[in-house]
Amino acid sequence: MLRTPRFFIGVDGGGTGCRARLVDRDGRILAEGRGGPANLTLGLEPATAALAAAVGDAFAAAGLGPADRADTDAAFGLAGVEASGTAAALAAHAFGLGRLAVVSDAETACLGAHAGRDGAILILGTGSQGYARRGAARIRVGGWGFAISDGGSGAVLGQRAVRRALAAHEGLAPASALTAAVMQPHADAAALCAWSLGARPADYGALAPLVFAHAEAGDRVALALRDEAVAEVEALVGVLAGQAEAPVALVGGLAAVYRPLLGPQLAPILALPAGDAMDGALMLARRA
Amino acid sequence: MLRTPRFFIGVDGGGTGCRARLVDRDGRILAEGRGGPANLTLGLEPATAALAAAVGDAFAAAGLGPADRADTDAAFGLAGVEASGTAAALAAHAFGLGRLAVVSDAETACLGAHAGRDGAILILGTGSQGYARRGAARIRVGGWGFAISDGGSGAVLGQRAVRRALAAHEGLAPASALTAAVMQPHADAAALCAWSLGARPADYGALAPLVFAHAEAGDRVALALRDEAVAEVEALVGVLAGQAEAPVALVGGLAAVYRPLLGPQLAPILALPAGDAMDGALMLARRA
Repeated sequence: MLRTPRFFIGVDGGGTGCRARLVDRDGRILAEGRGGPANLTLGLEPATAALAAAVGDAFAAAGLGPADRADTDAAFGLAGVEASGTAAALAAHAFGLGRLAVVSDAETACLGAHAGRDGAILILGTGSQGYARRGAARIRVGGWGFAISDGGSGAVLGQRAVRRALAAHEGLAPASALTAAVMQPHADAAALCAWSLGARPADYGALAPLVFAHAEAGDRVALALRDEAVAEVEALVGVLAGQAEAPVALVGGLAAVYRPLLGPQLAPILALPAGDAMDGALMLARRA
Repeated sequence: MLRTPRFFIGVDGGGTGCRARLVDRDGRILAEGRGGPANLTLGLEPATAALAAAVGDAFAAAGLGPADRADTDAAFGLAGVEASGTAAALAAHAFGLGRLAVVSDAETACLGAHAGRDGAILILGTGSQGYARRGAARIRVGGWGFAISDGGSGAVLGQRAVRRALAAHEGLAPASALTAAVMQPHADAAALCAWSLGARPADYGALAPLVFAHAEAGDRVALALRDEAVAEVEALVGVLAGQAEAPVALVGGLAAVYRPLLGPQLAPILALPAGDAMDGALMLARRA
């Protein structure tokens, strides 16, 4: 006889933080919780601590105790699941939960965006990745890191803006309001160089809004950078829709920025996401 | 009364290895020696060991002993002098030498290329850097690292080739013989991604000859990558010549590749190097 738990919790864990959504058997949202970065490539221990914080946060906010936790099925969608190979080490009992499923954050985002049906997503944030569910098949396009992939991502766009700003600063390329704004926090080329040695993808990605704002204002350098990024996003959407034979939902922090910039020919293959990655994790928790 | 030493030794030390040239008072070359990487940012101890090996190698090959060493003035031109700040810790007595001057490898390369006169160089190898000597002034353009600078360098060109090859592999951009050749050693995108996580500038730079060879054969992707790199080199030459008010000598492993590709308008401001970085170091040793 199947046991039906009283509660379900769905977690979305990425490199900047993790969020947990706790619902009852009828799908009513009881509470949400937050924790620190839970990308498994950052290490199993910090990820476990961040996940425990987000889960604990949600149960505390809902006023539920240990017995309720044990009567909760869970699913975690986490960044770095494939790359780290450590997902199997995350056990339900370590969190005081009933059952636990751990999958990639792309899987839960795709489940959530298409309400559990087949479909494709293009994640556009600090990184970028195309992902699709088509029956038992999983399709992946892009997302191989900002050094060689991640077209349209904030990190790639931001790094190009820095390169372009430094070139302008040295007289190697035309300057603009954008190139001045990117150089502004740095005393000179040597200071920018020192900054770049410690810069992570999120540091470059933090410059993406500056590029979009200057493009909006007509800055030529920003427009050129934006055009290049938009072309990369369009290529990703096209390949993804073709391979998945399904509509593509744009998700992530830059999704709303890119949506109005994409060519009208893509309108028929774009879909609005039905839900978020925590919704997707909750679907998975119910199936577990 | 000035002491005039009997011998002089000039050393060129970079990230891939170091070379020493030993000459007598009349400038006759007695021997050369080699050692491992002597970039000071790799650490003072390994650099010292590599330099000692190259210097010892040269004296051994010339059949000279400790008394001859002590009667030798030296200059080292080393990569990473500014970034490491450790050049002052290199002392002549540690190498059994008379006097020792330590400067950047760009300074010795520029001295050598222009036989000690004012002038500019553009170093084109794994990295790239423009450098000029104009009286007491030193001018620097580019060379701030392959993540944000180093236009025309092998590392920047090679990394773009990898990005372009992966995009072609995923159907995001047209494929060509070059993109196939770059992907060929890697089983799939995931394998290339794993490789990229450990790839250093020299690993990307190792792909530059492949790009130039395919461009020569008419490969469209290679030609586009080459055109972009040539434009970067042309911009560097133009800015450098303007700031230095002097001719620019192309030096480094890719200098001969770029020379015939540059626009004819640059011919009047390009100069052939008169000598190499060891020649430049020897000039400095004589002045010490």
